[in-house]
Amino acid sequence: MSSRIDHFIAGKQFSEADTRTGPVFNPSTGREIARCAYGSRSTVDHAVQVATEAGRRWARGSHASRQAVIFKLRDLMLHNFDLLAEVIGREHGKTIEDAKGELGRAIEGIEFACGAPHVSKGEYANNVGGDIEVFSMRRPIGVVGCITPFNFPIMVPAVMMTMAVAVGNSVVWKPSEKVPSAAIEFARLWKEAGLPDGVFNVVQGDKEVVDAILEHPGIAGISFVGSTPVGEYIYQKGTSHNKRVAAFTGGKNHMIVMPDADLDAAASAFVSAGFGSSSQRCMAVSLLLPVGHETADRLLELVVPKIKALKVGAYDDPSADFGAVVSSESKATVEGAIGRCIEEGGQMVIDGRNVSVPGHPDGYYLGPTLFDRVTTDMQMYKEEIFGPVRGILRPATLNEAIDITNEHEYGNGSVIFTRDGKTAHRFMMEVESGMIGVNVPVPLPTASFNFGGLRRSKFGDGHLYGPDAARFYTKLKTISQRWPEPDTAALPISLAFNPAG
Amino acid sequence: MSSRIDHFIAGKQFSEADTRTGPVFNPSTGREIARCAYGSRSTVDHAVQVATEAGRRWARGSHASRQAVIFKLRDLMLHNFDLLAEVIGREHGKTIEDAKGELGRAIEGIEFACGAPHVSKGEYANNVGGDIEVFSMRRPIGVVGCITPFNFPIMVPAVMMTMAVAVGNSVVWKPSEKVPSAAIEFARLWKEAGLPDGVFNVVQGDKEVVDAILEHPGIAGISFVGSTPVGEYIYQKGTSHNKRVAAFTGGKNHMIVMPDADLDAAASAFVSAGFGSSSQRCMAVSLLLPVGHETADRLLELVVPKIKALKVGAYDDPSADFGAVVSSESKATVEGAIGRCIEEGGQMVIDGRNVSVPGHPDGYYLGPTLFDRVTTDMQMYKEEIFGPVRGILRPATLNEAIDITNEHEYGNGSVIFTRDGKTAHRFMMEVESGMIGVNVPVPLPTASFNFGGLRRSKFGDGHLYGPDAARFYTKLKTISQRWPEPDTAALPISLAFNPAG
Amino acid sequence: MSSRIDHFIAGKQFSEADTRTGPVFNPSTGREIARCAYGSRSTVDHAVQVATEAGRRWARGSHASRQAVIFKLRDLMLHNFDLLAEVIGREHGKTIEDAKGELGRAIEGIEFACGAPHVSKGEYANNVGGDIEVFSMRRPIGVVGCITPFNFPIMVPAVMMTMAVAVGNSVVWKPSEKVPSAAIEFARLWKEAGLPDGVFNVVQGDKEVVDAILEHPGIAGISFVGSTPVGEYIYQKGTSHNKRVAAFTGGKNHMIVMPDADLDAAASAFVSAGFGSSSQRCMAVSLLLPVGHETADRLLELVVPKIKALKVGAYDDPSADFGAVVSSESKATVEGAIGRCIEEGGQMVIDGRNVSVPGHPDGYYLGPTLFDRVTTDMQMYKEEIFGPVRGILRPATLNEAIDITNEHEYGNGSVIFTRDGKTAHRFMMEVESGMIGVNVPVPLPTASFNFGGLRRSKFGDGHLYGPDAARFYTKLKTISQRWPEPDTAALPISLAFNPAG
Amino acid sequence: MSSRIDHFIAGKQFSEADTRTGPVFNPSTGREIARCAYGSRSTVDHAVQVATEAGRRWARGSHASRQAVIFKLRDLMLHNFDLLAEVIGREHGKTIEDAKGELGRAIEGIEFACGAPHVSKGEYANNVGGDIEVFSMRRPIGVVGCITPFNFPIMVPAVMMTMAVAVGNSVVWKPSEKVPSAAIEFARLWKEAGLPDGVFNVVQGDKEVVDAILEHPGIAGISFVGSTPVGEYIYQKGTSHNKRVAAFTGGKNHMIVMPDADLDAAASAFVSAGFGSSSQRCMAVSLLLPVGHETADRLLELVVPKIKALKVGAYDDPSADFGAVVSSESKATVEGAIGRCIEEGGQMVIDGRNVSVPGHPDGYYLGPTLFDRVTTDMQMYKEEIFGPVRGILRPATLNEAIDITNEHEYGNGSVIFTRDGKTAHRFMMEVESGMIGVNVPVPLPTASFNFGGLRRSKFGDGHLYGPDAARFYTKLKTISQRWPEPDTAALPISLAFNPAG
Repeated sequence: MSSRIDHFIAGKQFSEADTRTGPVFNPSTGREIARCAYGSRSTVDHAVQVATEAGRRWARGSHASRQAVIFKLRDLMLHNFDLLAEVIGREHGKTIEDAKGELGRAIEGIEFACGAPHVSKGEYANNVGGDIEVFSMRRPIGVVGCITPFNFPIMVPAVMMTMAVAVGNSVVWKPSEKVPSAAIEFARLWKEAGLPDGVFNVVQGDKEVVDAILEHPGIAGISFVGSTPVGEYIYQKGTSHNKRVAAFTGGKNHMIVMPDADLDAAASAFVSAGFGSSSQRCMAVSLLLPVGHETADRLLELVVPKIKALKVGAYDDPSADFGAVVSSESKATVEGAIGRCIEEGGQMVIDGRNVSVPGHPDGYYLGPTLFDRVTTDMQMYKEEIFGPVRGILRPATLNEAIDITNEHEYGNGSVIFTRDGKTAHRFMMEVESGMIGVNVPVPLPTASFNFGGLRRSKFGDGHLYGPDAARFYTKLKTISQRWPEPDTAALPISLAFNPAG
Repeated sequence: MSSRIDHFIAGKQFSEADTRTGPVFNPSTGREIARCAYGSRSTVDHAVQVATEAGRRWARGSHASRQAVIFKLRDLMLHNFDLLAEVIGREHGKTIEDAKGELGRAIEGIEFACGAPHVSKGEYANNVGGDIEVFSMRRPIGVVGCITPFNFPIMVPAVMMTMAVAVGNSVVWKPSEKVPSAAIEFARLWKEAGLPDGVFNVVQGDKEVVDAILEHPGIAGISFVGSTPVGEYIYQKGTSHNKRVAAFTGGKNHMIVMPDADLDAAASAFVSAGFGSSSQRCMAVSLLLPVGHETADRLLELVVPKIKALKVGAYDDPSADFGAVVSSESKATVEGAIGRCIEEGGQMVIDGRNVSVPGHPDGYYLGPTLFDRVTTDMQMYKEEIFGPVRGILRPATLNEAIDITNEHEYGNGSVIFTRDGKTAHRFMMEVESGMIGVNVPVPLPTASFNFGGLRRSKFGDGHLYGPDAARFYTKLKTISQRWPEPDTAALPISLAFNPAG
Repeated sequence: MSSRIDHFIAGKQFSEADTRTGPVFNPSTGREIARCAYGSRSTVDHAVQVATEAGRRWARGSHASRQAVIFKLRDLMLHNFDLLAEVIGREHGKTIEDAKGELGRAIEGIEFACGAPHVSKGEYANNVGGDIEVFSMRRPIGVVGCITPFNFPIMVPAVMMTMAVAVGNSVVWKPSEKVPSAAIEFARLWKEAGLPDGVFNVVQGDKEVVDAILEHPGIAGISFVGSTPVGEYIYQKGTSHNKRVAAFTGGKNHMIVMPDADLDAAASAFVSAGFGSSSQRCMAVSLLLPVGHETADRLLELVVPKIKALKVGAYDDPSADFGAVVSSESKATVEGAIGRCIEEGGQMVIDGRNVSVPGHPDGYYLGPTLFDRVTTDMQMYKEEIFGPVRGILRPATLNEAIDITNEHEYGNGSVIFTRDGKTAHRFMMEVESGMIGVNVPVPLPTASFNFGGLRRSKFGDGHLYGPDAARFYTKLKTISQRWPEPDTAALPISLAFNPAG
Repeated sequence: MSSRIDHFIAGKQFSEADTRTGPVFNPSTGREIARCAYGSRSTVDHAVQVATEAGRRWARGSHASRQAVIFKLRDLMLHNFDLLAEVIGREHGKTIEDAKGELGRAIEGIEFACGAPHVSKGEYANNVGGDIEVFSMRRPIGVVGCITPFNFPIMVPAVMMTMAVAVGNSVVWKPSEKVPSAAIEFARLWKEAGLPDGVFNVVQGDKEVVDAILEHPGIAGISFVGSTPVGEYIYQKGTSHNKRVAAFTGGKNHMIVMPDADLDAAASAFVSAGFGSSSQRCMAVSLLLPVGHETADRLLELVVPKIKALKVGAYDDPSADFGAVVSSESKATVEGAIGRCIEEGGQMVIDGRNVSVPGHPDGYYLGPTLFDRVTTDMQMYKEEIFGPVRGILRPATLNEAIDITNEHEYGNGSVIFTRDGKTAHRFMMEVESGMIGVNVPVPLPTASFNFGGLRRSKFGDGHLYGPDAARFYTKLKTISQRWPEPDTAALPISLAFNPAG
């Protein structure tokens, strides 16, 4: 019998009798390894009540006391590095090395949040007029509802919630039901770091929990990372309950390669960024756009052997380049996308179906698949595929490549490979993506900048980490202050508009 | 026959045949002075199309070229000061002096927007790792839909739209149909300032125009100032079309007076901030909360003669303290509120009904009205009254006064009068208002800080002016850039997560 | 008899009997056109006393009141544009068009200073620990002594002093005795803009005035622009009197041209930036470094006809490309430098000596002069030449070009022309100059960034304009504040270090 | 025979034969416990050469790699907390508890420096005009010479040098020869944290080392903390070698107590902040200024028993409130000051001479000493006394108290105790001190703000920690960049001033 993974509320495991549960799989073996409790509205009610009370005290605490917890959390992440990588890999399927890369980025986000006392400062001005001083403070918004995807079981929650907590909020977090164990481990680290019970709460579950969070009047803001259809739903529903919402959603990231580029570097970048983590990353490169047929042909020659050399394997196989996809449904969906692409006339260069991984006949494995001559009318072009299927388009010019990129529904990350300054500059000015790379595989900004796409890759004007996240998780109070003299002469009355005067 | 006020699109007056129109009144006389065209969906379509094209060019322009227009606009505001005050006063009813106060604040907002090239800068970091430089830029979001109220025909539009335009957006603006002339004057000044045609567009009208703006796929963001019910509608509908929305709404601003305060200053502040502009300001002080009966009694003694000395009159009567309310409907509503307050047990101290203004028998005049012993269960307490009716509550302690303030639906501005540092500090930490005053009548922040209330006084996380407005009106692009060596050695492939690495 | 130009102190012309005077020339004609009073220690004493008192009131004024003056100053600069250009040209010798370019930049600096209330804000943090709030304010330092060169009679003073005054300081300014009239005009505009008398003071003169300023205990800081030897003296002497000093000094700006560059653009840039204003600019390009002989030969072919087409003429000759040098001494010095370069083996390509300008036989004219094959051991290479003599060096590689640039005494501005991203990036990372250009003639930063060179092109860590100038002209006060409860329990005594605790 | 404490250069102990040495004492026992090597010019030469080379590589490293070292240093500080406290106490004489307080503050400074990648960012602006992008980067200045005092053997070095190193500089540090062991321990922690050898170097010694540092052409900047006479010398000499210098010097901090204050809290604050660490802190409260005789008398009554209850003892006596002064010379100096104050007419309230500490007859102990009716003409008022002698002045009014404070030579920290908002505000606006406290004992700003006094308490415009320290330790490079089109049309030549155009 598999073990049960529960909620984490008020600083401890929270179990409900008679609760729905769902299976948790090890994608590398295809076996169910646990049951995950699915919360209900009442679970969320309870968590919000706990978070509200704990949050009120946490918000009143000093910056110094909060910062101490964040620094300690960082230490604990380092001390539990291998354990966390194992927990991630087992339920997600990504390789241990890949999981460690994720953890490295999570720690960077925590490190940035260590600077919250500075990043969340207000401004001060003496005597703006009439001997009035004006100053502002950023205060926590209250309880933040966080909804995160399966593909980064620790990194996305860490970069999202650490800043939220650091500036004084409490959180109610619904992780993906596919990777519930990492959430519990993360919650335990927070507790061990000294976070008061009730500030950080995990409610496991599915859409029922999501809806309860979106509708709950005790939740002030929503942070979401996941797919575009869900993100759009979250944005619309969360705002319809008057919350502030920032939803970071899908990507179909284009990588343009110019004839003058370092083609070998471009080829390596495409393979790394395209197939890493079985392509289950919103920042994965989905499409390769060499400019001109000659570039395309030369690039293809470089890319194909690199892809063919990739090894698919279990998450704990140190020789594997990437692992299984997250679920059997996902595998079927990706296989369906491959089939449809063939039907639509995509030219299959490498077929990753029917890959076999010795010892794991039931794992959800898919080998790397590559299509050439993909066109923008194909379904394969239009939708985000969360599996190792990548495509090549063949624009004739840079203009065409930029137009293609901008006409896609998503605007998360876009990359160009070139040596030419003007070409890179035109690209960054004209391409409508939130994160732009020049000769880098994955344009994920470093932790002291901000994450966020454009168009249907992001809903709302907030940001996920970096300085602007501190703004999203706070509300401004602006104070206009004047002190009276011990014996003030009577002020004249004037009803004309002269505020603060 | 009265003249017709039309739209302003593509740099010129835009008239449609067969259009609906509505009356425009001079509240001081009660006479219809013009007809205002009411736009339709197709008017909005046209304006958005114009704004999109003009905006694309404007966004590509240099910071310097945009800044030149903003400086010129400031000059023109000064040169047209008297004219604008007259236009405001005639359709709104506020006194010329009050209109000039409004214009002064509008100019402050424009002056802050003169610094847009600085305020909208991105950040730069060399070598964040792997020889990668990361930098960010704030780019205009596109077409901004602006919806503004009647009570500040120029100030609200100016502080809202100048920053929007300064950072490179174009706008489609629906002003209040009660004050359409100011919108046309303002649009003309923009044109005269050198703004390219089509960047700044006015569509006159009512809810049909509002809905068309909220639903239009060509509009990226919505800025709204107005009442809470409308603002909530705007926030929910705008976001349901995936736009970013910042809606600044109603206020019922509490002014707490401590026993140690400079009572005469407090009394003057209450009268000025309470009755100015016939109380038709979201930052008006609505309620006076002296702490303790002794304070209340002493304050009442000071307040009553000051209120009784106020003179109501036509907008162009230089001896008037304030003018008519904006419409006959508004007058009736306010009179209804007075009547209901009497019914509910409010103790009427001064009755402003039945005021007569010589020479203007049909103007929408109301005299200042004051109730004592208002309680939180009265309708008069709960709703924002856009007319010169103010109330006194009598909390026993500071705690009670703060609790009352925080339990109100609105959290726009709150003010305390005290000499004690701790009392003021507790107030600013504990009161849940976005704008807080200490010994100032109206806590409207100066233009280099941010405007915005809390709770149901603001929807969304954006701001109206100040540095954060520049964020609301821009989207971030973050670039990760690495340049290849002339002869790069082949990069190793690693599919582990190491973005930008 | 020529007129006399006097000091400007306490808001009006200030004349002393028995004062030394010096001649003021019109370089275009070589004629003395006025006498300039030379102040003494007692003149400076008087000015500092006036500035101290006026400054004390000015510093107490509101940000709003100061900002109003800065905006008005900008208006007046525009309204007096032609007059100022004429005054500059007559005493300096630069063409009217060039003087207008200078004024344009001056106005940009003033425009940035319009944002002083924002740029000079402090920071605020509530509850950093122990319920203590900490905030900071930037206060004016007091009286600033400003010493400026002849080559930008209005721009340098404007970008320097406007921010100093905007944040609340008063100034005592010693302009170059060669261009004293512009100083008086500028002082008059300040007065007309509403600046209180005594905040802005001009003391004309020579080294005696400089020394009096540097030594005066009533002066808190020194801003200097001029030559390196003088700047070094100023830095050392000013700091030996415990003042803060920022001295911006000489340049010998290198322009590197790579083989892949747009050579025609590079050639034009060299001619414009090299010979403009008779090369009397610290940001002028002094040396051209094509990389590789082929690049050098091709570039030379493009450059020579462009230089030969340049016309030297009187400041008010609209067809002149540049004018006379500032004085007969300067002309002799430059001619000496040409002669020495010939002796040292420089290969003269164009000889600008013996140019004649019809109608102005006594003007201090020099034609454009170009040397090829200049080497780093030549005097011509080492020293800043304030006259139209430019040289070409022929490095073999980019590395050599960067090394040459970095080994020069000065590090003001350096420029590269290339199309390659990596080349530009290497250049900006490796070259030790404060202002770096990529494919631009003159890398003078825009007004919202900071001016300043490295090595012996700047002394001190301050900046001339941009946000960091606001820091140089202010001192920080940081306040740690805790308010006691009405009835505080006795605090425990602990002598261990726990500041503010 | 006592052990020898040596230099630390290039990552290891550095010993020289034939070197001068000086004694190191344990002030608690009065015994020599070690000999400290005294470096010479050649030691400094060697260290600078090592630092230059190591620094060049360190500066080229990534922000991420540097940040990793800073985080690790913080961990090591925590892990070596007790050891460091012991090392500090033994050579300095302060109690272990006090040393731990110092370490806590040191760690706060290190924590702020963990955010260096954010704090040291440059700015970016696209298209400021003419399609030019402008951006800035802050680069390390090179080798920083650091000179620190005995009184905070770890805190001052930590807050000073951690930011210097974090932004990419290397350091040559001369600690006080009285506390050389802490320097070696700190250097070892840096090495253990992963800092490359040669980036952090310690040269022990006396004035010869100081002069060698100030004069060395390989050192770019000087940070100093110590007494005012030495700081003035350092500022003048360092700048005479064209370095940037920030010298933080003495204090004579005034504490004003208003009649409305919480007197018991004020009394406790005075005793804690006045006598902690035997008053050997530049932020110690030196003088108590009750306003009005009644306040003075009441305060005296509260203060005297608190002071009499203080226990002087050995650094490792956990019951001691404070320890010995640092040296026998210091003890003699302080005793001399006490004697002179008696002669000058100070009214001795408590006499701390002739204190005896059982078991430590030769320790440099002084008991707490208090004078009332100190006047501003007394030597005791004028000079900083680094020993437990405090005085009371009796101003009649707040104005008089502020005037007294401002007329003192020093302007480090000033404190007021009051409940009145206006009084506190007037104080912070009018008092000329860099660090101001309102109802706090010691107004040392938290680590994310800046340290620095005014007047003769600081020389130069730099800061010691906080965001502005990152500016002091970096130089700006500002890049103006335009990329040419693939086929550029020839640019027109214009020699008029239009930089970067």
